[in-house]
Amino acid sequence: MRHVVGVDAGGSHTRAVLVQTSGEVLGTGRAGGANPVAHGIGNAVAQLEIALRQAIGTVPAESVSACVLGVAGGPTSGEPFLRALGELARRLGLGCACTLVSDSEVAFAAGTSAADGVLLIAGTGAVVVEIRAHRKIRHVDGDGWLLGDAGSGFWLGRQAVRAALAALDGRGAPTRLLAEVAGELVAAPTSEGLRAAAYGRPPLALARLAPLVTGAALAGDEVADRIIRRAADLLLASVGALDPVTAGHTRAVLAGGVLLAPGPLAELVTAGLADRFGLTARPAGDTALGAARLALSGVGGPVGGTRE
Amino acid sequence: MRHVVGVDAGGSHTRAVLVQTSGEVLGTGRAGGANPVAHGIGNAVAQLEIALRQAIGTVPAESVSACVLGVAGGPTSGEPFLRALGELARRLGLGCACTLVSDSEVAFAAGTSAADGVLLIAGTGAVVVEIRAHRKIRHVDGDGWLLGDAGSGFWLGRQAVRAALAALDGRGAPTRLLAEVAGELVAAPTSEGLRAAAYGRPPLALARLAPLVTGAALAGDEVADRIIRRAADLLLASVGALDPVTAGHTRAVLAGGVLLAPGPLAELVTAGLADRFGLTARPAGDTALGAARLALSGVGGPVGGTRE
Repeated sequence: MRHVVGVDAGGSHTRAVLVQTSGEVLGTGRAGGANPVAHGIGNAVAQLEIALRQAIGTVPAESVSACVLGVAGGPTSGEPFLRALGELARRLGLGCACTLVSDSEVAFAAGTSAADGVLLIAGTGAVVVEIRAHRKIRHVDGDGWLLGDAGSGFWLGRQAVRAALAALDGRGAPTRLLAEVAGELVAAPTSEGLRAAAYGRPPLALARLAPLVTGAALAGDEVADRIIRRAADLLLASVGALDPVTAGHTRAVLAGGVLLAPGPLAELVTAGLADRFGLTARPAGDTALGAARLALSGVGGPVGGTRE
Repeated sequence: MRHVVGVDAGGSHTRAVLVQTSGEVLGTGRAGGANPVAHGIGNAVAQLEIALRQAIGTVPAESVSACVLGVAGGPTSGEPFLRALGELARRLGLGCACTLVSDSEVAFAAGTSAADGVLLIAGTGAVVVEIRAHRKIRHVDGDGWLLGDAGSGFWLGRQAVRAALAALDGRGAPTRLLAEVAGELVAAPTSEGLRAAAYGRPPLALARLAPLVTGAALAGDEVADRIIRRAADLLLASVGALDPVTAGHTRAVLAGGVLLAPGPLAELVTAGLADRFGLTARPAGDTALGAARLALSGVGGPVGGTRE
């Protein structure tokens, strides 16, 4: 009996899965964040080891014939991280080396078994990625909260506060976002209070306000509805910059909390992908399973080596 | 012979001027930043004292019959700051108390002797203020770099980097801003390099890139031209939120480095103020003289008391 292992590791948590070559899931594992850029290579590898040992359990490690690790920050961490992953594979006694891929390649595989297509991620940040032969070949945006991430959770949350401030000082129309944002951030809905609350925490904390925009839009708030439509337009504009029609793509995968939450934004993006680019959109499922799917499809190979 | 004193104090420097009631300038003084919120009340008062002593020089301090201090962060610093200013006036032997006003009231007075009108400030940040009887009665925006300051130097600088990134990944049109921004920030004009440089310094440092946008627009760059036009529209929208026509205003004062720099943005804003709102715009001159003008016009009065 042969097995493969797939891992998805991000900034806050790591998930691993052991899968039979027939596709059946035999074990799962969880651990903390394992982004080597954010946490250091030693800590990242330690978390990967915890998740992998849990997933493999009592199955003989030498029966693992392919292992794909999707690690945020992994592909840019260079030789020292690749060496540490090699040592980890030996320490675990795996029957193969581990292949390091990007978290976006894993997310795409979590939505489709196809090798080519477009991946839209909108969580705290936002990026659009072109995937070819299972690999990320190009991306648009992903420029972070200060410079871009148009249509992301941060972007939505910031727009919510801006709409509240605009409603207070007369620049914008009245909106229920004022009461909702104030309810999250402050006791009294004043400009000074909102500003103090927003500047008093890390900028990315604004991403937590994103669900308020969806909620207000569903409740009929026109200002929130405009923000949602603008977010969809910005995400679709990033897709457009990849020119998926000329590239011959037919599939898109949606990932990230903002796009995976059911609601008007996911609907607008899905409809826009079909209407503007002829792309059929599917949500990303379990990302550790996505990594395992890459392992099953033969993407696995020697660490740092050329993937098939 | 009687005299008045005017002071403009900001985050980075403080300027004072001693003026005869005839209007003649008899002395000037300079010191470091005196924003009590940013530097603490003790440090702020120490810098104010340095600038005031220089400006008063050998003129008998008891002949100073009015003193107006425009201090950024002053009006929100409350009783402790007002008490410290009272002690300062006694220590200097002034023949009057000092009146604390906002830096925007001083900036408006630096552009006109009128008592009513609209003030547009666009420097690192941006805010539009309605002035009535020399006092700030309302403002729009001024929400800071994270939430607003639309049309400010920060806003322009950030748009410059975004335009460069968009030119690199295909979202945006080619623009000379790519070479110019890269020339300021990095050795090689790559997305990764630009992002690393922008995130590697404080967000407000992006304001230093604002002149690149003006320069590129003047050189015929269409992307830069659109950014400048958008900045002007945003500043004019903030003015519109104050509804100056209904309020009967006829005067506007432009302040801040972005609006005081000659070029297309100041021209578009000046033309827009006239066309849309019937406002005649003038640039703010010497802000310490603006404070002295307020002192001469009788705005001075007891610290913390009601101004005439």
